[in-house]
Amino acid sequence: MIVYGLRSISEAIQSKKNLNKVYVQRGLKGSLAHSIIKSIKELNLELSYVPVEKLNRLTPKNHQGIIATISPIKYLSINDLNHIIEKNGENCQFLILDQISDVRNFGAIIRTAECTEIDCIIIQSSGSAPINGDTIKTSSGAIFNVPICKVSHIKDAIFLLKQSQIKIFGATEKAKQNIYETDFKKPNAIIMGSESKGLSKSVIGLCDELVKIPLQGKTLSLNVSVACGTILFETVRQQKY
Amino acid sequence: MIVYGLRSISEAIQSKKNLNKVYVQRGLKGSLAHSIIKSIKELNLELSYVPVEKLNRLTPKNHQGIIATISPIKYLSINDLNHIIEKNGENCQFLILDQISDVRNFGAIIRTAECTEIDCIIIQSSGSAPINGDTIKTSSGAIFNVPICKVSHIKDAIFLLKQSQIKIFGATEKAKQNIYETDFKKPNAIIMGSESKGLSKSVIGLCDELVKIPLQGKTLSLNVSVACGTILFETVRQQKY
Repeated sequence: MIVYGLRSISEAIQSKKNLNKVYVQRGLKGSLAHSIIKSIKELNLELSYVPVEKLNRLTPKNHQGIIATISPIKYLSINDLNHIIEKNGENCQFLILDQISDVRNFGAIIRTAECTEIDCIIIQSSGSAPINGDTIKTSSGAIFNVPICKVSHIKDAIFLLKQSQIKIFGATEKAKQNIYETDFKKPNAIIMGSESKGLSKSVIGLCDELVKIPLQGKTLSLNVSVACGTILFETVRQQKY
Repeated sequence: MIVYGLRSISEAIQSKKNLNKVYVQRGLKGSLAHSIIKSIKELNLELSYVPVEKLNRLTPKNHQGIIATISPIKYLSINDLNHIIEKNGENCQFLILDQISDVRNFGAIIRTAECTEIDCIIIQSSGSAPINGDTIKTSSGAIFNVPICKVSHIKDAIFLLKQSQIKIFGATEKAKQNIYETDFKKPNAIIMGSESKGLSKSVIGLCDELVKIPLQGKTLSLNVSVACGTILFETVRQQKY
């Protein structure tokens, strides 16, 4: 769903609608435009300066040089993570997605996260799959029952979690330790990497432990939503069975 | 990939190409046509009588009333299951898919099966996702490393496996027993149900044990490829770790 036009987007910002990404025409002038752009930056929304042709493709209507997408859910911000940690104490389990870009994988992972009592899924503003009709459908509606926190850089979230003594597990085939040799006691956070590149190097450096699923065949990796399910249910097994 | 025309399809049958499904124009006449249809039935290939318009949509070329799709892999037949059982003895593990119809789920499941040393995936001729470019891509090429057996009815395969004392586990949310209370020792076969309906009633009746993944939230089921990965890796954990 999109909104367009200076007044509409100004209103959307003021009424705290869940604006997702804002497209602004390059060179857009005017005091209202400047005040909107200032608010967008203050609110840490994703902002993209684009040529007018891109805006014209998004809507044939009179967009006045600005279009925003609205998210069907309200994202948590990085500050909300502290509330979750305070509320759930030692019992926290987070799932961090390092730029999962496929909508169907994202939806299936949200569904799995709800089925494994993840307290919050943390994603990065850029590089992550959008939340659209396909995400909602493949999540089987679970998206409305598990909080999703969007941060500028997942490293910021990792630093915050580490300050609260939350153990960070990175899932990567390069790990030496397998998930069955790993103690997934809470509180913890599990990071899954993107479909194409896996975990980024800088994120790997921040993990307390790297873990892998012990693959038995010739194939080098699993589908990321399958891998995520395998790991999250191993945590459930250890914690409850 | 398709082949069309009476001679081409007759040749494809004689040279034992991996014909998948054959579309025959309703009321098609002639001795060659009859001999082809007879062979199709003897070989137990999927045969569909269609109006000429359907054939014209499949190809603009001169199809002579008959078009077949060719599979990129060679399927095993039900008789080949006995060879696998004889060869692998007590160490067999099969995966049976009860009409998984989504190509991407099918591909992800094939990938997982190769990563968990499944000896053979068994699917039903009708109601199963086709093997096409998307299946190959989502399987990450694993499709060329795990045998797939196509049978007319999965019940036939279940009967055959049971005769060889292979234990049949059906995965369904309706089960009372969870996978962590289940002994997945080999030889065994695990049946996953379709995306929309789960396991069919008649298949449930043939299972030795019904098992579920213990879901912790409000969502009633997992994506089928995630569920399959969770169960297959629990069997790996029990057997190896």
